[in-house]
Amino acid sequence: MVESLASGGFSPGKIIATTRNLTGAQKLQELAQKYANVHIVTLDAVNQESIEKCAEEVGQLVKEEGLNCLINNAGIKVVADFHSVTAEKMMESFHTNAVAPLMITKAFLPLLKRAASRGASRTMGIQRAAVINISSLLGSVELNWGESSNNFKWYPYRTSKSALNMVSRCMALDLEPDGILCMMIHPGWVRTDMGGSEAPLSPEESIASVLTVIGGLTEKDHGSFLDFTGEQLPW
Amino acid sequence: MVESLASGGFSPGKIIATTRNLTGAQKLQELAQKYANVHIVTLDAVNQESIEKCAEEVGQLVKEEGLNCLINNAGIKVVADFHSVTAEKMMESFHTNAVAPLMITKAFLPLLKRAASRGASRTMGIQRAAVINISSLLGSVELNWGESSNNFKWYPYRTSKSALNMVSRCMALDLEPDGILCMMIHPGWVRTDMGGSEAPLSPEESIASVLTVIGGLTEKDHGSFLDFTGEQLPW
Ligand SMILES: NC(=O)c1ccc[n+]([C@@H]2O[C@H](COP(=O)([O-])OP(=O)(O)OC[C@H]3O[C@@H](n4cnc5c(N)ncnc54)[C@H](OP(=O)(O)O)[C@@H]3O)[C@@H](O)[C@H]2O)c1
Ligand SMILES: NC(=O)c1ccc[n+]([C@@H]2O[C@H](COP(=O)([O-])OP(=O)(O)OC[C@H]3O[C@@H](n4cnc5c(N)ncnc54)[C@H](OP(=O)(O)O)[C@@H]3O)[C@@H](O)[C@H]2O)c1
Repeated sequence: MVESLASGGFSPGKIIATTRNLTGAQKLQELAQKYANVHIVTLDAVNQESIEKCAEEVGQLVKEEGLNCLINNAGIKVVADFHSVTAEKMMESFHTNAVAPLMITKAFLPLLKRAASRGASRTMGIQRAAVINISSLLGSVELNWGESSNNFKWYPYRTSKSALNMVSRCMALDLEPDGILCMMIHPGWVRTDMGGSEAPLSPEESIASVLTVIGGLTEKDHGSFLDFTGEQLPW
Repeated sequence: MVESLASGGFSPGKIIATTRNLTGAQKLQELAQKYANVHIVTLDAVNQESIEKCAEEVGQLVKEEGLNCLINNAGIKVVADFHSVTAEKMMESFHTNAVAPLMITKAFLPLLKRAASRGASRTMGIQRAAVINISSLLGSVELNWGESSNNFKWYPYRTSKSALNMVSRCMALDLEPDGILCMMIHPGWVRTDMGGSEAPLSPEESIASVLTVIGGLTEKDHGSFLDFTGEQLPW
């Protein structure tokens, strides 16, 4: 995603990537070397101290311009069926996938507000300020029925993503008065570490679609749950 | 609920009530004194050891008849808005309201299966075996929008109940092959410790409606989210 943004025709100004392992993030380091507008900051999404330190560092980078777009993308795939699921697995997945995006958004609120209040545009969208939560089709309660659900009996992952949808919807209501757009997006089934080699989409294809959707967001998408093609998904 | 079941015209056989504080549960003790079919067993819903011990005790009570109906009713109202919410509050609420019903249902599965396989009836319902999860209207992501949501900016509670809906839906899929019905019910806004004195429904009114809905459940309600009047709620 960072590479697409940095190398793409449309330049979003400063791009701030986070990682919990600064020295291990070789690809990001290379991008930061190559593109002057790419910055790397450490963030462990489940550590409150790390979240606050990250928000402070980002604040120093964006200064009075604030932050136009926060993408909560970090996630873990905790897989367990009815028989193997434990309370611990449920809690771990919930923490990273649903609670972390909430705590991170709280910490970045001052920077988002700053960007939202500066924009000449009164229209909601990333040209002003937006929070994008990367959710999943598997978080749809409605779609978790019938044949298609049989291959994905993943209690911790599914539950954490439907919880993220409620968190996002709550945040959408609270961010609206400040003109900050908030929505959820399903990136498709993608060949990443998480998605595995059998997934139909390459990371490049997914990211190109996701960035197109994000770029076109307006008021009407506030509080919505869209897939990478821009189609609305049921809760 | 226990009193309504014990004193009502329809006798459900053994009624097993749980409490995490056996000596403090005076009203239940009185009911157990008065009605021979009321039994009390200790259960702390967030303690795995307690869950397993409870399932064992219930097994000894129901014997080869098994358990026809498990009602996951225990819940906590953790209230916090965008500014006061913490990771700890989110986790606590999630554990009691979404994870506990899952771990309890797992522990009671052998007893539910026993009842489901005995029933002469092949129709799903409480005459065979059912898991009823007490959810809430506030767990509906769809309904968390517009004016009505303003008074209930309860991140931990809302999120835990929408998570419970996903957990219930996952369980419905997994319990179906054994003929065990699983669904969620919103009991209405009720004058309990949780609902407060301004709630429109008395506990008796809510319980009468909820028990009527539960009594009439069939296949078509499997995996559904109903309110106390039997109306379907959006996810
Ligand atoms: N791939 C799919 O098919 C698919 C489908 C639907 C939704 N999604 C969602 O898309 C998002 C990205 O997934 P992906 O496929 O790129 O997964 P991935 O290959 O497993 O990458 C997940 C990333 O999240 C980071 N992360 C996990 N926990 C973190 C923490 N506590 N703090 C900071 N970073 C953390 C990981 O960091 P490390 O590198 O340090 O481990 C990793 O870089 C996730 O939210 C996922 O649920 C993916
Ligand atoms: N009241 C409403 O308006 C309303 C509306 C929608 C949904 N609901 C749902 O209806 C259910 C019942 O609520 P209520 O109004 O009766 O609430 P309540 O008056 O607060 O009673 C909740 C009960 O849950 C028990 N409990 C909590 N944590 C427990 C644990 N870890 N282990 C065992 N028991 C535990 C409490 O035990 P102690 O007595 O030991 O504390 C208490 O008896 C809940 O799931 C609630 O979310 C209520």
